[in-house]
Amino acid sequence: MTQMAGLKPQHFLWSVDDRVATIRLDRPERKNPLTFASYAELRDTFRDLVYADDVDVVVFLPNGGNFCSGGDVHDIIGPLVDMDMKDLLAFTRMTGDFVKAMLACGKPIISAVDGVAVGAGAIITMASDIRLATPEAKTAFLFTRVGLAGCDMGACAMLPRIIGQGRAAELLYTGRSMSAEEGERWGYYNRLVAAAELEAEALKLARQLASGPTFAHGITKTQLNQEWSMGLEQAIEAEAQAQAICMQTQDFSRAYHAFVGKERPVFEGN
Amino acid sequence: MTQMAGLKPQHFLWSVDDRVATIRLDRPERKNPLTFASYAELRDTFRDLVYADDVDVVVFLPNGGNFCSGGDVHDIIGPLVDMDMKDLLAFTRMTGDFVKAMLACGKPIISAVDGVAVGAGAIITMASDIRLATPEAKTAFLFTRVGLAGCDMGACAMLPRIIGQGRAAELLYTGRSMSAEEGERWGYYNRLVAAAELEAEALKLARQLASGPTFAHGITKTQLNQEWSMGLEQAIEAEAQAQAICMQTQDFSRAYHAFVGKERPVFEGN
Amino acid sequence: MTQMAGLKPQHFLWSVDDRVATIRLDRPERKNPLTFASYAELRDTFRDLVYADDVDVVVFLPNGGNFCSGGDVHDIIGPLVDMDMKDLLAFTRMTGDFVKAMLACGKPIISAVDGVAVGAGAIITMASDIRLATPEAKTAFLFTRVGLAGCDMGACAMLPRIIGQGRAAELLYTGRSMSAEEGERWGYYNRLVAAAELEAEALKLARQLASGPTFAHGITKTQLNQEWSMGLEQAIEAEAQAQAICMQTQDFSRAYHAFVGKERPVFEGN
Repeated sequence: MTQMAGLKPQHFLWSVDDRVATIRLDRPERKNPLTFASYAELRDTFRDLVYADDVDVVVFLPNGGNFCSGGDVHDIIGPLVDMDMKDLLAFTRMTGDFVKAMLACGKPIISAVDGVAVGAGAIITMASDIRLATPEAKTAFLFTRVGLAGCDMGACAMLPRIIGQGRAAELLYTGRSMSAEEGERWGYYNRLVAAAELEAEALKLARQLASGPTFAHGITKTQLNQEWSMGLEQAIEAEAQAQAICMQTQDFSRAYHAFVGKERPVFEGN
Repeated sequence: MTQMAGLKPQHFLWSVDDRVATIRLDRPERKNPLTFASYAELRDTFRDLVYADDVDVVVFLPNGGNFCSGGDVHDIIGPLVDMDMKDLLAFTRMTGDFVKAMLACGKPIISAVDGVAVGAGAIITMASDIRLATPEAKTAFLFTRVGLAGCDMGACAMLPRIIGQGRAAELLYTGRSMSAEEGERWGYYNRLVAAAELEAEALKLARQLASGPTFAHGITKTQLNQEWSMGLEQAIEAEAQAQAICMQTQDFSRAYHAFVGKERPVFEGN
Repeated sequence: MTQMAGLKPQHFLWSVDDRVATIRLDRPERKNPLTFASYAELRDTFRDLVYADDVDVVVFLPNGGNFCSGGDVHDIIGPLVDMDMKDLLAFTRMTGDFVKAMLACGKPIISAVDGVAVGAGAIITMASDIRLATPEAKTAFLFTRVGLAGCDMGACAMLPRIIGQGRAAELLYTGRSMSAEEGERWGYYNRLVAAAELEAEALKLARQLASGPTFAHGITKTQLNQEWSMGLEQAIEAEAQAQAICMQTQDFSRAYHAFVGKERPVFEGN
């Protein structure tokens, strides 16, 4: 297993405190765009998180009042316009691999959204497990605005399952902003929080999850993804197996004995 | 075919009136927990319902102001903590088989929720076709509270399809209660009803369904489950076949002739 | 490629203006029911739209204050009651083929709903990509009222993904009307618009889409359908391939150069 508290990423801010890792993109003067290099480093970080022994929950935070403005026009879109198919596919697969790595990292991911979260920035929030936002959050899947399709990094599969097929279709065809209020009504954001409280609320929720049965949380995440396209009967059998595994953890036993002893259970993630 | 009006279950209350069966768990002083024996008896009852000739709709009702408090801590969780994998899997499969039997019973199931509906109690409501609730209903998928994963009895597959992936993830990771008002906004409850009216409303809806084309209702239920993970084209072909079957029923002909004769159709379920 | 502006359909009104095609069923005195012949002509028209060079978006409009009353009782239901299985399946497959053709036509479809949209009329709106409605819109999947199942033309697959499994189940089992206000809250309608503004708003949205990157819109539509039952990892790879294709279009390059030149991009759909 790996320790990740000491990670020194070159392309984003990183901290680990009390088993909660935080990530902030770090070009606030440009609303935190992504570059080829930051995509790759994020992908690698989430791949490493599978083995991290000192991180149980990951939180994406805004920086300077914005979350992320997506792929940088000059650093990313300019070069893409001149690439051949081999390199284009290498790029779209790299961005897809970042989302796959978020899904497969085995820890719940919380996005705390303020200001702009567009393009790949919207995708980061979409691929998170839980989303908080301020009333000022503006999320747009604006690929159509640069002449592309709405199918970017899993959006045609994932967005409809979060907000419904009809609302997702409109956002993906038009590229329009979803307001924070719409996002809450539609089930995109779990909750709206004033900007001054956003980080504290996101970290409080992260710490709550990190103090829970984190091995079981990892299984919950696995099954939410794993059962995406299973038949109902197969999903129920898969859950019978997955939950039986969790019933052999010490955390299950700790919870029972705490209940009997009228104490609060202390989970250890095993 | 079987007659089920005379069933005398040992572990829950059962009645059949006017082709509508009602079920109430029956330990109101402990908010109606489940035990190994009641799980098994419920599973067997729903398996038998496939062949029941005198029941068209099933309604789960609360008892003493609560719906169901889930698996009993003393009767179920205690023994599970000491079981080996073979027995654990036998248990999780039995609970899964109960849900599979609800899905496969061929009759619409209505849950009328008041008070506490948590753990396996929440699952019973989730696996029902239609859900009514009082403003006092508190539903929680609280498996995480006892150190387990959210993937219990199909919850990671079914809950996201009812309330959306993001809201489901939060409920499954945190185990928090969903209020009745949230449940209605999110599409979990079809309608909220004052406690004094709950049973009458649920039975009225059940009777309305029971007086409809019940053979066709069974096909609707089959297809809602069957098409869960089909491709769109395959689902459309499956419905062409399923609906063609229904077009050969007498109920279809009865409806047409009633319409032409300006009468109300009387369906007979064949 | 085909030009479709000159199409002279026998069973519905058709116009093409500024790359937007409009369709109105045309028996307003009976709320615009469908017949065997209009089903078949609609199916064929959507099949031809795949190759239409002069249409980028399709809009279904109401006529005389109503959208569509579904399959005509006298012209369709009467004959069906007397058909054998071979002919019944030919009919249900034809109606399913109409929906398949809508899904496969490669252009976004907008439904503008006023008044009655029931039975197959509701299905037309359901199989559209975006739905606007007036406060007077009444949508009902009323197959159960004529003794049939809710599984008609894909409803058991598609409706749950738009409004959630629980709300869909209620509508399909009971056949009750969904009000416009419910439809907006539940994500069925993207927006409610006063009757006097409905057509103008629907056409404005259609023109906005038609002035966008229409090749990419076609890919968005393909992927929304294609990923319906894919696993998450497979969907992400599929999108990497699909988006790489779009990155080789001139529209992508046009958008980039317009951005750099601080101009508004002019898309040409290639």
